[in-house]
Amino acid sequence: MERMEKQLKFLMEIDKVKNVFRQTWLADGNRKENDAEHSWHLAVAAFLLKEYAAEETDILNVILMVLIHDLVEIDAGDTYAYDAEGAETKRAREEAAADRIFGLLPKDQGMYFRELWEEFERYESADAKYAHLLDNFQPLLLNRESGGLSWREHGVKKSQIYKRNEKIEETSPQVWKKMKEIVEEHVRLGDVKED
Amino acid sequence: MERMEKQLKFLMEIDKVKNVFRQTWLADGNRKENDAEHSWHLAVAAFLLKEYAAEETDILNVILMVLIHDLVEIDAGDTYAYDAEGAETKRAREEAAADRIFGLLPKDQGMYFRELWEEFERYESADAKYAHLLDNFQPLLLNRESGGLSWREHGVKKSQIYKRNEKIEETSPQVWKKMKEIVEEHVRLGDVKED
Repeated sequence: MERMEKQLKFLMEIDKVKNVFRQTWLADGNRKENDAEHSWHLAVAAFLLKEYAAEETDILNVILMVLIHDLVEIDAGDTYAYDAEGAETKRAREEAAADRIFGLLPKDQGMYFRELWEEFERYESADAKYAHLLDNFQPLLLNRESGGLSWREHGVKKSQIYKRNEKIEETSPQVWKKMKEIVEEHVRLGDVKED
Repeated sequence: MERMEKQLKFLMEIDKVKNVFRQTWLADGNRKENDAEHSWHLAVAAFLLKEYAAEETDILNVILMVLIHDLVEIDAGDTYAYDAEGAETKRAREEAAADRIFGLLPKDQGMYFRELWEEFERYESADAKYAHLLDNFQPLLLNRESGGLSWREHGVKKSQIYKRNEKIEETSPQVWKKMKEIVEEHVRLGDVKED
């Protein structure tokens, strides 16, 4: 198959991520958000909030990372942040998905996206840490906006949120301060359970 | 208001673009696409198809441009590509929207996005031409995938598509070749009207 047809086939395949729904409600609380919308939102946030990243980041790399970080969920599905059972099999399901989905691209581009996804998953580089910060901060903001719908729905405990966000403080003290404010506010409101 | 709160307020305001629906159907034909999904799709395509842009582009600039190009539709609504009446009032509606929406940001970032949106609208720079190519090519691909649903629904004529895409050939001869192939195929299938 010619190079452009491979690229177009990939672009049409990833259209499916618009039907992978997350556990986060939109700000207006009317429906849940899908992965394409979430990824778009993170990409805009990546640019606007980059001044808060403690380490220097390559913003193009971060934006590409957040744009593609959830594509594996086309096959593997969304695993909710606080789903312990799902987390156990997540890695294997997502590896197989990455092989298939990134494998649709011409080899150079497929390898590039695969490596970018692996960089995100390793959660080690400055870019990956900042991408994870965005991936955790955006649903927190939406949750605040929708009145804590997703936390209440899943009975989320404060300790779970703190555990999930344990690397945020080193990635950005300012964002971590804001996140703590939001969590404490929703503990007071009864949306998040005090342990 | 402190700087970060302005940025977060903007990020929550633009959540509304997830509820601005376009006339393009998803690849699976099950529902129409919204602006957030569309913008995400263009951003990924911007990176993958950049080798076909005849002039050199700044890919970060293009990606940011496509990520924000439809935010004005939060207030101004989506004007279908082949809606002649809507097109007349579009500019004024979108200017007012840009003032309000980008005005939520800290001044430096608001001016930056406003200028980026104006660059897109002027359709003159290499980056803007490539962004418009993506903005026109992606719905064409989705239309092909969904069996020409949107063309049939609106009775679109071949001459309208050619008129709308008159700058694509100079932006990318290869993409224009592919677009013509797709249009001619759907004229044959009866999805697009021969004039």
